[in-house]
Amino acid sequence: MINVTIWNEFVHEKIHDAVKAVYPNGIHTALAQGIQQDGFAIETATLEEPEHGLTEEVLNRTDVLIWWGHMAHDKVSDDIVARVKQRVLDGMGLVVLHSGHFSKIFKALMGTSCDLKWREAEEQEIIWNVNPSHPIAEGIGEKIILDHEEMYGEYFDIPTPDEIVFISNFEGGEVFRSGCTFRRGRGKIFYFRPGHETHPTYFHPGVLKVIANGVKWAAPAPGEALRFGHSPQPVREFAKGSVV
Amino acid sequence: MINVTIWNEFVHEKIHDAVKAVYPNGIHTALAQGIQQDGFAIETATLEEPEHGLTEEVLNRTDVLIWWGHMAHDKVSDDIVARVKQRVLDGMGLVVLHSGHFSKIFKALMGTSCDLKWREAEEQEIIWNVNPSHPIAEGIGEKIILDHEEMYGEYFDIPTPDEIVFISNFEGGEVFRSGCTFRRGRGKIFYFRPGHETHPTYFHPGVLKVIANGVKWAAPAPGEALRFGHSPQPVREFAKGSVV
Amino acid sequence: MINVTIWNEFVHEKIHDAVKAVYPNGIHTALAQGIQQDGFAIETATLEEPEHGLTEEVLNRTDVLIWWGHMAHDKVSDDIVARVKQRVLDGMGLVVLHSGHFSKIFKALMGTSCDLKWREAEEQEIIWNVNPSHPIAEGIGEKIILDHEEMYGEYFDIPTPDEIVFISNFEGGEVFRSGCTFRRGRGKIFYFRPGHETHPTYFHPGVLKVIANGVKWAAPAPGEALRFGHSPQPVREFAKGSVV
Amino acid sequence: MINVTIWNEFVHEKIHDAVKAVYPNGIHTALAQGIQQDGFAIETATLEEPEHGLTEEVLNRTDVLIWWGHMAHDKVSDDIVARVKQRVLDGMGLVVLHSGHFSKIFKALMGTSCDLKWREAEEQEIIWNVNPSHPIAEGIGEKIILDHEEMYGEYFDIPTPDEIVFISNFEGGEVFRSGCTFRRGRGKIFYFRPGHETHPTYFHPGVLKVIANGVKWAAPAPGEALRFGHSPQPVREFAKGSVV
Repeated sequence: MINVTIWNEFVHEKIHDAVKAVYPNGIHTALAQGIQQDGFAIETATLEEPEHGLTEEVLNRTDVLIWWGHMAHDKVSDDIVARVKQRVLDGMGLVVLHSGHFSKIFKALMGTSCDLKWREAEEQEIIWNVNPSHPIAEGIGEKIILDHEEMYGEYFDIPTPDEIVFISNFEGGEVFRSGCTFRRGRGKIFYFRPGHETHPTYFHPGVLKVIANGVKWAAPAPGEALRFGHSPQPVREFAKGSVV
Repeated sequence: MINVTIWNEFVHEKIHDAVKAVYPNGIHTALAQGIQQDGFAIETATLEEPEHGLTEEVLNRTDVLIWWGHMAHDKVSDDIVARVKQRVLDGMGLVVLHSGHFSKIFKALMGTSCDLKWREAEEQEIIWNVNPSHPIAEGIGEKIILDHEEMYGEYFDIPTPDEIVFISNFEGGEVFRSGCTFRRGRGKIFYFRPGHETHPTYFHPGVLKVIANGVKWAAPAPGEALRFGHSPQPVREFAKGSVV
Repeated sequence: MINVTIWNEFVHEKIHDAVKAVYPNGIHTALAQGIQQDGFAIETATLEEPEHGLTEEVLNRTDVLIWWGHMAHDKVSDDIVARVKQRVLDGMGLVVLHSGHFSKIFKALMGTSCDLKWREAEEQEIIWNVNPSHPIAEGIGEKIILDHEEMYGEYFDIPTPDEIVFISNFEGGEVFRSGCTFRRGRGKIFYFRPGHETHPTYFHPGVLKVIANGVKWAAPAPGEALRFGHSPQPVREFAKGSVV
Repeated sequence: MINVTIWNEFVHEKIHDAVKAVYPNGIHTALAQGIQQDGFAIETATLEEPEHGLTEEVLNRTDVLIWWGHMAHDKVSDDIVARVKQRVLDGMGLVVLHSGHFSKIFKALMGTSCDLKWREAEEQEIIWNVNPSHPIAEGIGEKIILDHEEMYGEYFDIPTPDEIVFISNFEGGEVFRSGCTFRRGRGKIFYFRPGHETHPTYFHPGVLKVIANGVKWAAPAPGEALRFGHSPQPVREFAKGSVV
């Protein structure tokens, strides 16, 4: 059983009617309902909760954290970001969605600006599977078509991804590396592009399937803690001066 | 001075009027003229020449081989393919263009089918630079727009590229990893997508700039031959049984 | 249930007493016993069987093929190699062990010489885990120590691996990328270095754990066949001449 | 002409006799002398200078910054680190040496702990070239042998490198990914392991050759600034509702 915490800043849904109409109970709730059939143990957390709902206790029992944020990235406390980052390095999986590309936690883990181009023009996005044997693409087939989405365009200022799973074509001419994986410390990170707050993207079965696959892929396996630092004992004895 | 050999099967241009109209002297000649200002020493070779123009002498003096082929892949002798492959593994650069994705030499170096989707519908291709600090993208800016090209679509059945430099958006909705690098042995390989025989793509300054950049990137540096095989002498002495 | 076929050329064990002493029933039998507790459905195949035991029927029911060969690479029929290669591109996993680096099937899938340095000097190999969150490293900890193994040294002439999971240190001073993954078509390939025929390496629990992990990682997921070729119907309608 | 700034914290050399004996004028001076024949325009900067010698003016004229630090990482101002990081994302090359793995600037660009194992035991390091066609390996041959160095061992907690150029074997049994490249924004980063302050490593011709190669590789090419943000104008016109 994978323990999933879905974090949503949960601001748009309270102040913008167009968003409220799509996600009346918040994006986090839609996501939780959308992936629950995969058998995850799901809880949610939002910005306004104490410690943004991301207490040590919550993070300690979280296998994979899903992150959606947009207009309130700056409101997320640096201390909580540092705590989440350490948990990722210690093995917690992280699935970053859409505008989460600009969250403090994603930027801290990437080391780059994570900037991109964007346009809100109700245009069609076609998400192509370019890594068909990857577990995150399982069951997706060759593409997902979203009739209307916000455009994100290259150059997307991220480090070279470990793996590119999806690439999007936008009607207005742009492309985007929409599904990317990154390993950081013991943690696995999956960035997945779609999910603008005014579109019902998180009700799309293909999108939900990718997110559920991402959670499974990012879930940590049991393993020894990594050992670092002073290692005075060599693994094998050697005689100084034995150089050929 | 980089010695470049441009290989073209040179069949379309002799039998198809639409192609002859665009490339009356052959694609190889257009390419040679298009990149000559970069100061390369250029020669050309074609299918109908003895040994397809790729004799041991020619290959030995070639730093980078450019390859365009399409309707006559099967006519290329397996012996010549083996010879070219060995030269690549020994360090000769290789720039494979457009329908060269299905050439024997590219498939032998990739190990996959190199298959893809295609459509001839005069549609617009926008080639996005997704690796702006890569030498192959130098001077290109954010994109190249080709008004009309053949569509190539994913899934493109290649090994994971070492680097993705360009990704194309096609008007009909597809995407394609259009600029990809691969290292094989001591040789560097650059695949670049555009160049359908009925379009004047190889007169486009941006396309020619990318090809010239690719040649410079793929050119071999002087270096020792690689050493393989039995190495009875260890680099350092060791005492069997010295295990901690 | 993953269906595993273990292929072994099974020649050393019949003609070399030192090998027979270690693997009296063949390396394939030792491997089968060593990973059987993982719940795989295992069969074996050897060079001397008709079609080397790799009939269409056998391959069609194989999820992951393990390959060990050394002195008889040339005896493997090119037709069978082509058949195995096609199955890998269609999704069958492949785990290549030790001297299998020089097998026809591995070279055909890699496109390079797959050459390396080697020495038989009973030296210690320490295999370091450099990808601790990778499923192939699960349960391995930071290293595996083999008291005596054949040395394999860099430069190992393979394409850039998709992922490097293990790197070996040899007592005589060499290093080697000992655990490497590659995707080819729909198939996943894992190369794992240890396993010289005169050493009891395939009785080592850590080595067997890695091989079992590799099988699980390489096993195919159900998925649609890839679609290639002529795609006359665009995914979206477009108006020629609509260029901005 | 590439403008190189060599930054050294320059503390060990003033307070530790063993270091002063090897680098009486500081590691930065030894490095400057060691790579000057490559025709770089070199300046140096140290911790104790105002703004650590890394003023806006200095950074603006720097093509590639070399970084050596160890005992005073914490003394480097966060503001200067932010300034250097921005310059790297804007295209300045960065060559990080040895204990610089733990510098604020490297950790900020990597997003990980950058931790590792270490031991000071005067042991032999053999640095193997595992990427022989890479420009950073040009002229190096198959290996560099350092008779005595500090050991650095895996797991090295960095993101997956874009390219691994060198891997080290240490006498005591460890391995290390000693030469790694990373792209961040428009900037290219090269990490190179050797260079403990008590060893004359930065007088070794092979080590200096690698550092000079790294500088040349990391040097920025002229290029347009990257364009980000709101892009209301699509590249091609599209008709909403045109979905097939």
